[in-house]
Amino acid sequence: MGYNLKELFEPKSIAVIGASKDPTKIGHVILKNLVEGGFSGQVYPVNPSADVILYQHAFASVLDIPSEVDLAIIVTPQPVVLKVLEECGKKRIKNAVIITSGFAEVGNTEVEEQIKEIAKRYGIGVIGPNCMGFINTYTRVDSVFNPVYKLGRPKAGEIAFISQSGAVGAAVMDLAAKMGVGISLFVSYGNAAVINETDLLQYLSDDPRTSVIAVYLEGVRDGRKFLDVARKVTKKKPVILIKAGKTQAGSKAAASHTASLAGDYAVYSSAFKQAGILEVESLTDLFDYSKIFLQPFPNGNRTGIITNGGGIGVLTSDFVIRNGLQMAELDIETKKTLRDSMPMHVNIGNPLDLAGDADAARFKVAIDAMMQDKNVDIIILTPLMQTISLDSSIIDLIIRESQKMIKPIAVVTIGGTYTEQNRTLLENGGVPTYTSPYVATGALSKLAWYAKRYQKD
Amino acid sequence: MGYNLKELFEPKSIAVIGASKDPTKIGHVILKNLVEGGFSGQVYPVNPSADVILYQHAFASVLDIPSEVDLAIIVTPQPVVLKVLEECGKKRIKNAVIITSGFAEVGNTEVEEQIKEIAKRYGIGVIGPNCMGFINTYTRVDSVFNPVYKLGRPKAGEIAFISQSGAVGAAVMDLAAKMGVGISLFVSYGNAAVINETDLLQYLSDDPRTSVIAVYLEGVRDGRKFLDVARKVTKKKPVILIKAGKTQAGSKAAASHTASLAGDYAVYSSAFKQAGILEVESLTDLFDYSKIFLQPFPNGNRTGIITNGGGIGVLTSDFVIRNGLQMAELDIETKKTLRDSMPMHVNIGNPLDLAGDADAARFKVAIDAMMQDKNVDIIILTPLMQTISLDSSIIDLIIRESQKMIKPIAVVTIGGTYTEQNRTLLENGGVPTYTSPYVATGALSKLAWYAKRYQKD
Repeated sequence: MGYNLKELFEPKSIAVIGASKDPTKIGHVILKNLVEGGFSGQVYPVNPSADVILYQHAFASVLDIPSEVDLAIIVTPQPVVLKVLEECGKKRIKNAVIITSGFAEVGNTEVEEQIKEIAKRYGIGVIGPNCMGFINTYTRVDSVFNPVYKLGRPKAGEIAFISQSGAVGAAVMDLAAKMGVGISLFVSYGNAAVINETDLLQYLSDDPRTSVIAVYLEGVRDGRKFLDVARKVTKKKPVILIKAGKTQAGSKAAASHTASLAGDYAVYSSAFKQAGILEVESLTDLFDYSKIFLQPFPNGNRTGIITNGGGIGVLTSDFVIRNGLQMAELDIETKKTLRDSMPMHVNIGNPLDLAGDADAARFKVAIDAMMQDKNVDIIILTPLMQTISLDSSIIDLIIRESQKMIKPIAVVTIGGTYTEQNRTLLENGGVPTYTSPYVATGALSKLAWYAKRYQKD
Repeated sequence: MGYNLKELFEPKSIAVIGASKDPTKIGHVILKNLVEGGFSGQVYPVNPSADVILYQHAFASVLDIPSEVDLAIIVTPQPVVLKVLEECGKKRIKNAVIITSGFAEVGNTEVEEQIKEIAKRYGIGVIGPNCMGFINTYTRVDSVFNPVYKLGRPKAGEIAFISQSGAVGAAVMDLAAKMGVGISLFVSYGNAAVINETDLLQYLSDDPRTSVIAVYLEGVRDGRKFLDVARKVTKKKPVILIKAGKTQAGSKAAASHTASLAGDYAVYSSAFKQAGILEVESLTDLFDYSKIFLQPFPNGNRTGIITNGGGIGVLTSDFVIRNGLQMAELDIETKKTLRDSMPMHVNIGNPLDLAGDADAARFKVAIDAMMQDKNVDIIILTPLMQTISLDSSIIDLIIRESQKMIKPIAVVTIGGTYTEQNRTLLENGGVPTYTSPYVATGALSKLAWYAKRYQKD
């Protein structure tokens, strides 16, 4: 491709072309988010009819800006996009995000071809058009045009997310912020006129801040190239993907959305698998699966379950088996340790039901025993937080055990406000939490598969 | 069975046998929840060594209580359960909840047989042992021994929930409280020594406050009888069920949990289907599926989708098809109305993508058009709340449209804090909401199936 994506995502100076004084306009919200969101570089509003916007001096054209500009964010009306992109070229701006829509996705392929032509002529790396651009949580560059009170920004972390759909991407970012999932980079790339999913995948493969790559995809421009790149990337980092437009109805909808040819899903799905891509079914699964890959890689799939609620232990055991994991057979020494330290009404086995009167100390004994048992590769904790005897002291305990990074630990818990608060604490402490044993075991199963395939640990 | 379950669930006076002064004891929490939870009848603490508990005069035995008692809640240590149950019989108390555990589930089948014998001799209707008892949201009888700050109590509503597992039941109640799901009656029935799942199903079938019955099941005592009753009940009210102990591992765990023989799952599953029971896979699905049955029954399965986020429209279309619903073909008149009133960048079709700049007014036009279109049986709204132009005024609008009860409406929306707040408003207004199009279409598909099978509308 020849473009420098590192420079694109880490600019020192940004021109917002189409910046606006009107708070209901995208060009206002983007400028506001940049100015107030912690970006430490220079920001230049560009608008032919405004002097000052949000206390920043505005320029009639990028050509009037006296200093160098690294990135242009273009939010002008569609008819002037070509003109301002040409000006960016003359100004030697090397990268641009075109937020504006009204191109190939509505049949204007000719104008989109002209974008490509200008980009090529001047060597401009372009994200979009018809997109939301990107959020870099480290440098605080943020071109997403949703107000922060409606769309929370996620904290910095190790999961990158690239999304063909802007709205889906934004909604999922908002969810990540709420869930406490850390993000390295979010890119909504829309019509992908210049920089496409394959370029982004390649870039993220080498990005030291990114450990896991999550992808929302409707269609692929060059399927063969995408898969060739993916095959290499998945050897380095897990790629978790959701494909929209699986059915004829969905595929038809995708065509008018991001001008995608969604293609035959069965072909896609089998190719993804061959390339080592992990496909998920629902948007919430994207991060529920991604975050498990920040856990240590297991040596196998023998799973131990510790609970204080018999029923959730039963359900979790079912899903362990149905998702292709194994139930660990506890070592005889482990059983002895547990029997010696547990009250008689606790049945020693797997699932290990510590009973409704279990406190944090009883959980600690159980977790330590499973951590040391060589027959246990994976630990699932399902503490129900509603009981009299369990309190938030179990949270610190689980976080400390998890931080040892010896075996993957996932927590499944279900409930209301009190449970949610404790879940948030766990997530903030780096422990992956789930509201359903189905999703937790699904994610762990992929982790075990990936660890085995690429023999990492 | 001969027991009067209406009297059991609607007592005027309650003895808490094993009431305690110690706030860490179950016998304290139950008494506290009854006294503070709004139960309007008489409550009698029973404890041989206490005078006053929570400002209530305590009795050494139920036999010392001067007035009639309708219900005994027994939370004594296991060794005295038989004795106090016998005393209940002598006191002519007609119903009892035995919370205490340590019976068949740990192999003490003989003592459990004695419970049955005493119950039979005196004609006592017994829930339990080894259970949490019940919550009647209308009369505020509440024997669940979790503190209310850890386990929220759901509001009164039309969904009944019976659960073999106490902890699972409690966790799901807590979730219902958080989600704003209304509950008529919750029963955790544990070992089911006397009153079992079949009795409860029969009772709920005739309970005027219950429209939908949700069930968590590990095993069934008398499978044939359960299915006979279920076959009749499902003709009157939908029964949504989750079966735990589907695999050998889960089944083994269930045996030591509620003394259940989980049986061969394939046999169960096919029998459930024949009896018209709707099976779900995960605990969160229990209410996600139940609440859709409070919507009007559709005439068919032709589904219209209205969104402001193209990608979520694509994903939802996929799941409509994959869950066996059909995409509605909008009537030519509907298309004309929509074309005349929508800006040109809105593509008229299904899914109807109102575009990222859609406001509540644009949604209203779209909803009205689909409500009137005879080709549309079901409406799914997927408003992404992160956009600049959408605000909470859409919430009132959706609630008003939903309250017309013309066609089933489900809302799918995904996001963080702002979105969650708006989801809660919708749920409180009686609109079923979902975070995933997969679950929403799954639930709607069951609704369409049930409506067709039983030809209701």
